[in-house]
Amino acid sequence: MQASGICTYHGRMDGMASRPHVVILGGGFGGLWATRALARAPVRVTLVDRANHHVFQPLLYQVAAASLSGPDIAAPLRHIVRKQANATVWMEEVTGIDVATRSVRTTEQTIDYDYLVVATGSTHAYFGHDAWAAKAPGLKTMNDALAIRRRILSAFEAAECEPDPARRAEWLTFVIVGAGPTGMELAGTLAEMAHHTLPREFRVARPHDARIHLVEAGSRVLAAMPEKLSAIAQRKLESLGVEVHTGDAVTDIDATGVRMGDQRIVARTVLWAAGVAASPLGAQLGGERDRAGRVKVAPDLSLPGHPEVFVIGDLAWLEQDGQRVPGMAPAAKQMGAYAARALRERVAGRVPRMFRYHDEGSLASISRSSAVVDLRGWQFSGFAGWLFWLIAHIFFLIGFRNRLAVMWNWAWSYLTWQRNARIIVGGRPRAD
Amino acid sequence: MQASGICTYHGRMDGMASRPHVVILGGGFGGLWATRALARAPVRVTLVDRANHHVFQPLLYQVAAASLSGPDIAAPLRHIVRKQANATVWMEEVTGIDVATRSVRTTEQTIDYDYLVVATGSTHAYFGHDAWAAKAPGLKTMNDALAIRRRILSAFEAAECEPDPARRAEWLTFVIVGAGPTGMELAGTLAEMAHHTLPREFRVARPHDARIHLVEAGSRVLAAMPEKLSAIAQRKLESLGVEVHTGDAVTDIDATGVRMGDQRIVARTVLWAAGVAASPLGAQLGGERDRAGRVKVAPDLSLPGHPEVFVIGDLAWLEQDGQRVPGMAPAAKQMGAYAARALRERVAGRVPRMFRYHDEGSLASISRSSAVVDLRGWQFSGFAGWLFWLIAHIFFLIGFRNRLAVMWNWAWSYLTWQRNARIIVGGRPRAD
Repeated sequence: MQASGICTYHGRMDGMASRPHVVILGGGFGGLWATRALARAPVRVTLVDRANHHVFQPLLYQVAAASLSGPDIAAPLRHIVRKQANATVWMEEVTGIDVATRSVRTTEQTIDYDYLVVATGSTHAYFGHDAWAAKAPGLKTMNDALAIRRRILSAFEAAECEPDPARRAEWLTFVIVGAGPTGMELAGTLAEMAHHTLPREFRVARPHDARIHLVEAGSRVLAAMPEKLSAIAQRKLESLGVEVHTGDAVTDIDATGVRMGDQRIVARTVLWAAGVAASPLGAQLGGERDRAGRVKVAPDLSLPGHPEVFVIGDLAWLEQDGQRVPGMAPAAKQMGAYAARALRERVAGRVPRMFRYHDEGSLASISRSSAVVDLRGWQFSGFAGWLFWLIAHIFFLIGFRNRLAVMWNWAWSYLTWQRNARIIVGGRPRAD
Repeated sequence: MQASGICTYHGRMDGMASRPHVVILGGGFGGLWATRALARAPVRVTLVDRANHHVFQPLLYQVAAASLSGPDIAAPLRHIVRKQANATVWMEEVTGIDVATRSVRTTEQTIDYDYLVVATGSTHAYFGHDAWAAKAPGLKTMNDALAIRRRILSAFEAAECEPDPARRAEWLTFVIVGAGPTGMELAGTLAEMAHHTLPREFRVARPHDARIHLVEAGSRVLAAMPEKLSAIAQRKLESLGVEVHTGDAVTDIDATGVRMGDQRIVARTVLWAAGVAASPLGAQLGGERDRAGRVKVAPDLSLPGHPEVFVIGDLAWLEQDGQRVPGMAPAAKQMGAYAARALRERVAGRVPRMFRYHDEGSLASISRSSAVVDLRGWQFSGFAGWLFWLIAHIFFLIGFRNRLAVMWNWAWSYLTWQRNARIIVGGRPRAD
């Protein structure tokens, strides 16, 4: 079935059928920014995503930690682009890409394209240990965040019902593998939840006794940041009660814990924030790829040999001035906006200028009043860092309503130490 | 394993072990009100629920309709009773009750009780057609609400991707079976979503063309209310574009629609708001039960022959002045508070006075500015009814924060016609 000729668009899509068809795969930062930057281009745009919503990924960990509800940090893609007359959104799962016939297969149909933007991002990598995935879930999507929330909250509930003190301690032990920004944020917020939010509400279990281990194979937390900020972040984490293990590679994960060489931590809840692998759709493009599966792109972000295909965001492998462009939200947004410009140039018969990544710095929150910020050499931390983090995140949240709702939820949590979204959906996992 | 002797309570539970043990099953209105009314009683209370949260059921349909997010209308049970020193909350699923040995079995353990309050409520009844359950989900729990939200939102998404106009129309047709308050509220809010919230966001599907059928076997909508209000409600529903079928009993439900005798409605989404059956745990109490499985109780709400067991809320079968006490939130709260008082009397060696149900009236919302209200003879409707409905619901919502959050979400939705929680979690159901 060929969809792109059959559909009868109504209303503002009239007269679009003769325009070049741009198909954009993925509604994350890259794909969404590309879509929006094509608003006034003489093309018609089909944005395809398996979810119906864009997620503000930098705050996913707050959904996992029950501080925010899912809808606080997500908005329906079709709502975001509702005023963009040349764009349509399809909620379908992409199963294949054929650059030879210029078509994309989904679970529902085949879609022909004139231009393709692949922005399907990344997923978790377990370094060949796929069995670990079920035991140590990662945090990339809204589904992941809700699953992790359920595990964390259920662990405290299980501890409360467990008469055996040794097993109760297992339920109150949490291991987070990987001390990048996500792992650190999860560890910090989990420590705050255990030591401040929950203690008064339990009678048998003592959330205050919960142990939170952050395990990092590398030599320091936040390896991508300057050493000074790593040291500050580690000290702050330790002051929150997080046990930081650096230089310890995880060698096994099973139902009751984690092994690092000779060492073993007995824990019922293990979360994965260590490895990243490119979306498997990258393999279908046929080009060169790095070890994590990222697709090598030309300086204009096109697939070598296919000027009509652009690869952006976490899926793209691009080096600039001897440095890899990092898999971060600002890079994805810049690539999305650039790909849209380059595409307009191509449609107009011109050759696009090459992409230049502009480093906007990086930041990571540690706790409710502490963050580390690195703005191209200008580094700061503590409460000032946290205020900067707060303003930056609220500013970049999509949608006016969400910003206010999130501010309200944060203000409330900040004043009361409460978490607004401590709802376990889907029942409690069994003890064994 | 006997839990009630093994657990070592800490902090404020010290010294509670010698008190009579009251086990309360179910954290809905009945069980929660009973728990809170025992705050100063010389007993220790264990509240058991398979969920970790209390749900404000009268607003569940707004979660199903994506107007509110789950956490807006739910709060963790242990948070609600955190200051009640004699109460503890266990998140476990109850699998059996043995009134002879005075014990309750859960998936995790056996709990002994001195007094038992059974408040496990009701579930959906498909009148012997259990196969309909998968095709036409009902709305009782948070899980139900999120599943229905996913179905409704996914139907519009599927319509947008469907090139065949006839099949697209099937995706845009919704059938709600049962025109009690829940069915009517679902139909009204679904009509508003289709005709006001969504139209500008779709390019192929026309949400404005969506058809919403409300099918009722009885002779009128809102059968429990005065005829005048039924007529007003039906007219209002029809003005919203809902097609109301009264006197039509559903005879079959399959993957593509609903049959009512000779008539058939082709629809991809069918929701069930028709039958109610008592919680199956009622059968384990050994007493007399009515056709829906409700347990006959003595005038003091105890199980005949077992003065230490109380049955309250939707599970109780009680007639008063020739009228059945209805399965509604106010009745459950009154029964919960009464059971706590009666229990204190029993503990003190006195005989409790009998329960008297006080009819507080009933109300049902139809749309964003219309509701019907029946306050024991004083009836009103329209905008005044809706304002009353709004104030009553905000007033009764548990938790200060939730009230403000819900007010904010409602105000925003009211002004913008937007829905804040249009997030599909868990992927799109397949077409067939």
